[in-house]
Amino acid sequence: MQRVEKWDIFEIEFKGRSDKNPFVDYWIRGTFTGADEKVTVDGFYDGDGVYKIRFMPAYEGVYTYRIEGSFSDEVTEGKFEVTPAVSANNHGRVRVIDETHLGYEDGTPYYSIGTTCYAWVYQTESLQEQTLETLKNSPFNKIRFCMFPKYYEFNLREPAYYPYERGSGEGLDMNLVEKEAKERIVFPGMKPPVMDFNFNYYKPCTATYQRFDRHIRKLRDMGIEADIILMHPYDRWGLNDMNKEACDLYIRYMTARYGAYRNVWWSLANEYDIISTKSEDDWERYAAIICEKDVYGHLRSIHNCMRFYDYSKPWVTHCSLQRLDFYAHCELTEKLISQYHKPAVWDENCYEGNIHVGWGNITAEEMVRRFWESFMRGGHAGHGETYVDDHDILWWSHGGILKGDSAPRLQFLLDILKETPGKYLKEGTGLFDEAVGVAGAQINDADPWSGYPSYEYEIHYLGFCRPAYRMFYLPEDQAYEIDVIDTWHMTVTPAGIHSGETRIELPGHQYMAIRLKKVNL
Amino acid sequence: MQRVEKWDIFEIEFKGRSDKNPFVDYWIRGTFTGADEKVTVDGFYDGDGVYKIRFMPAYEGVYTYRIEGSFSDEVTEGKFEVTPAVSANNHGRVRVIDETHLGYEDGTPYYSIGTTCYAWVYQTESLQEQTLETLKNSPFNKIRFCMFPKYYEFNLREPAYYPYERGSGEGLDMNLVEKEAKERIVFPGMKPPVMDFNFNYYKPCTATYQRFDRHIRKLRDMGIEADIILMHPYDRWGLNDMNKEACDLYIRYMTARYGAYRNVWWSLANEYDIISTKSEDDWERYAAIICEKDVYGHLRSIHNCMRFYDYSKPWVTHCSLQRLDFYAHCELTEKLISQYHKPAVWDENCYEGNIHVGWGNITAEEMVRRFWESFMRGGHAGHGETYVDDHDILWWSHGGILKGDSAPRLQFLLDILKETPGKYLKEGTGLFDEAVGVAGAQINDADPWSGYPSYEYEIHYLGFCRPAYRMFYLPEDQAYEIDVIDTWHMTVTPAGIHSGETRIELPGHQYMAIRLKKVNL
Repeated sequence: MQRVEKWDIFEIEFKGRSDKNPFVDYWIRGTFTGADEKVTVDGFYDGDGVYKIRFMPAYEGVYTYRIEGSFSDEVTEGKFEVTPAVSANNHGRVRVIDETHLGYEDGTPYYSIGTTCYAWVYQTESLQEQTLETLKNSPFNKIRFCMFPKYYEFNLREPAYYPYERGSGEGLDMNLVEKEAKERIVFPGMKPPVMDFNFNYYKPCTATYQRFDRHIRKLRDMGIEADIILMHPYDRWGLNDMNKEACDLYIRYMTARYGAYRNVWWSLANEYDIISTKSEDDWERYAAIICEKDVYGHLRSIHNCMRFYDYSKPWVTHCSLQRLDFYAHCELTEKLISQYHKPAVWDENCYEGNIHVGWGNITAEEMVRRFWESFMRGGHAGHGETYVDDHDILWWSHGGILKGDSAPRLQFLLDILKETPGKYLKEGTGLFDEAVGVAGAQINDADPWSGYPSYEYEIHYLGFCRPAYRMFYLPEDQAYEIDVIDTWHMTVTPAGIHSGETRIELPGHQYMAIRLKKVNL
Repeated sequence: MQRVEKWDIFEIEFKGRSDKNPFVDYWIRGTFTGADEKVTVDGFYDGDGVYKIRFMPAYEGVYTYRIEGSFSDEVTEGKFEVTPAVSANNHGRVRVIDETHLGYEDGTPYYSIGTTCYAWVYQTESLQEQTLETLKNSPFNKIRFCMFPKYYEFNLREPAYYPYERGSGEGLDMNLVEKEAKERIVFPGMKPPVMDFNFNYYKPCTATYQRFDRHIRKLRDMGIEADIILMHPYDRWGLNDMNKEACDLYIRYMTARYGAYRNVWWSLANEYDIISTKSEDDWERYAAIICEKDVYGHLRSIHNCMRFYDYSKPWVTHCSLQRLDFYAHCELTEKLISQYHKPAVWDENCYEGNIHVGWGNITAEEMVRRFWESFMRGGHAGHGETYVDDHDILWWSHGGILKGDSAPRLQFLLDILKETPGKYLKEGTGLFDEAVGVAGAQINDADPWSGYPSYEYEIHYLGFCRPAYRMFYLPEDQAYEIDVIDTWHMTVTPAGIHSGETRIELPGHQYMAIRLKKVNL
């Protein structure tokens, strides 16, 4: 009997009809039945007369299946065994826990240290390999990227391949295409020129999507969530002018093809609010298709440019945030969490780098500060890197190598986060404007004028402040083990065990944190 | 004939009645008449049977005067000549110009580079001398300080003198007083203990106020505005428990005594909203007294802690701001200006230093950034310094010497500001979130996506961003002289004269600005 690990993919491949347009004209569907679940999923056409169906089991034990559809006259039945999840990085899906936090299905805490390489899957093979190698040695456990190619400043080269087949097969002169792309690049928020690529939006390019399969699987095996961006505004190929029928077909195809990867998240769009051809009705319809077709309930959101989407919509599982203000953003994390009652993920909050635009030239120090602020307030954060490059290879879009200084500090942060007792860190209360992440039992009321620490475990993050010392008014009858954490130099220095009024000496530079752990003497 | 310079003080001193309580029971008033103004002002009792009356003429030429009152049976008349303002730093009063900006009476632009030494006038003589010496060699052209002594953390020593005479003459044991002060210090926002100093609130201590006369005059002669804080919450002497009659007497005394100094500003209170014994009615009544008695129309405001006062009140000449949010403050300058239609002065926006509390431990870099942000958005800013000190001498309260690194950069900023063509810098529009200060004629609409520079003179301040270059899309038929300004290293580097699309190379570190000046070729 075939075996597959829990939360891995059980895939079956069939030869079937290839006349007409199999993407549209034939269907394939399978029902998978185990002792604990019975799931019906759509399969998909993968070109050359090949149909595939994928299933991710959530329980161990023997499953039976039954595959049928118009793709073939036969009905296929069989069974397989689901074995325990023992592979490295197999913790199941990331889910919302306790309403406003995230965690893996097996109970492992999940702190989302994201990064962004919008168009990495459309780059050359060698660059993609380099990106994967970089990711392997990075702190990142989530990556955002686009299913469609990207046209934008620093993104003027044509992609290595396309998401659709050319309708007529007639070629364009790529030299001319790139020349025009360079000449006509315009600022974001303005509709870029559309060139006539004559795509057939009813024929996904399966070679392209097969590549993405490999990417998503490699990410999965490295323990990296794939935050798939289905649509975005940076288009010159007419992909935002697809009609409703073609768009819905695309959403269904994505769901059938990639839904069985445990590490997939659905991001309906990047900067949805500057895609002029879509309305809220469209987003809600795409969301409804995903809710219906993604039987695994992967995380779903939609990412803003200048206006948050209404994250209170039931289908939105978490807030995928881009700062609305240049100065106040991650410091608002706890307000957003309490407003939407959902996890807050700062997927874009400026990038470390030195390009000319304000969203892409903050320092590594500031990038790291924004991560700490986000996490200490109970949220999550995303990274990106935009350093000027002679060949216009910028991590934020193309992947490649990391040139900046934040990534090791984000690893350090992740290591600290993993020491949190319990399932997650949440927002506490501090006296002097600092962000305080807390965990464990609450042992005191949260009056900041007298009662801190209020929890068994607290991290007071001091951000851009640089005090030479800090006072804590601990209970006289309760001891705390105190560590001084230098979030930039990546050190944890024990500061002893204390009760009562306590003065903690600090080095007087920025980006420090103080950790208090209740101990029993 | 006696002579006095325009905007200087013409003072006459009289011997008069000293029976009863002359502060309350006798009055003195004078009328000063020149060709261009006729002004009636109250004089004040200065102890030992001495009455004084002060007048600041605003025009040149011969004035007559007539002094009368219950202090004496005689009426005194005379005349004097007002000569042109030729002394260094004599530019007249600072006034509101064009609704939302500040300028001296003689037309000289005024950019308020403030500092704060709340209790410096209550320190020892030698420390006061040191403070004046420091100010002389500083960029500061305004200082905020309190008329009443201060009790607060780092402010536990008894003042060198008091604002009122002891009623009974009975002494307190000052060692015990200071011991209790240390033991009972509490956090701001809570009413500190009041010790029974038995002050007679109807008898100002004239020796104390004579000292303040010398201070205010020295500041005036150095070109430093004295932003006098009449009340504040940091009290342990019962000064906030004075009754209404005594308070009003105090306000009238301050006005009569100090109104003739051209460099005086009235700040009704520091952190008015945490003085629990005062209501809005009180503040409005004090303001009404000042509006009636201060014939010179000095600038008037009131400074907040957690809630802005209603700056739209007619008597408020400018917004005296303390940040309400730890992260978003001076970046809101232009919004506040357009909300209140008054000048915006960030009198407190955290202090450079390293003490344990969040308001007193930002870096010099951040302090300087906040100044640039404030000015580039058409506002003004104030400085303070709170470095840990073995003797608890912190500039922010006690004066002394400056230990930080921001002051020279604020001088550099002031020098740049003084190069502004016209009367002031106001808020312009930038493409990438930066603060832009503009002056001169508007030559373009302010559409940030295409039309900048929009003014003949623009400074684009890049703050914590650190681009390696910046693009400008100048008109093809218009030339701009461009300077690269390093606001931290205090350099101005010419970058040539440009038209059309222009790329300006930058060093790739923080705190840069780019200045564009329209030139005729």
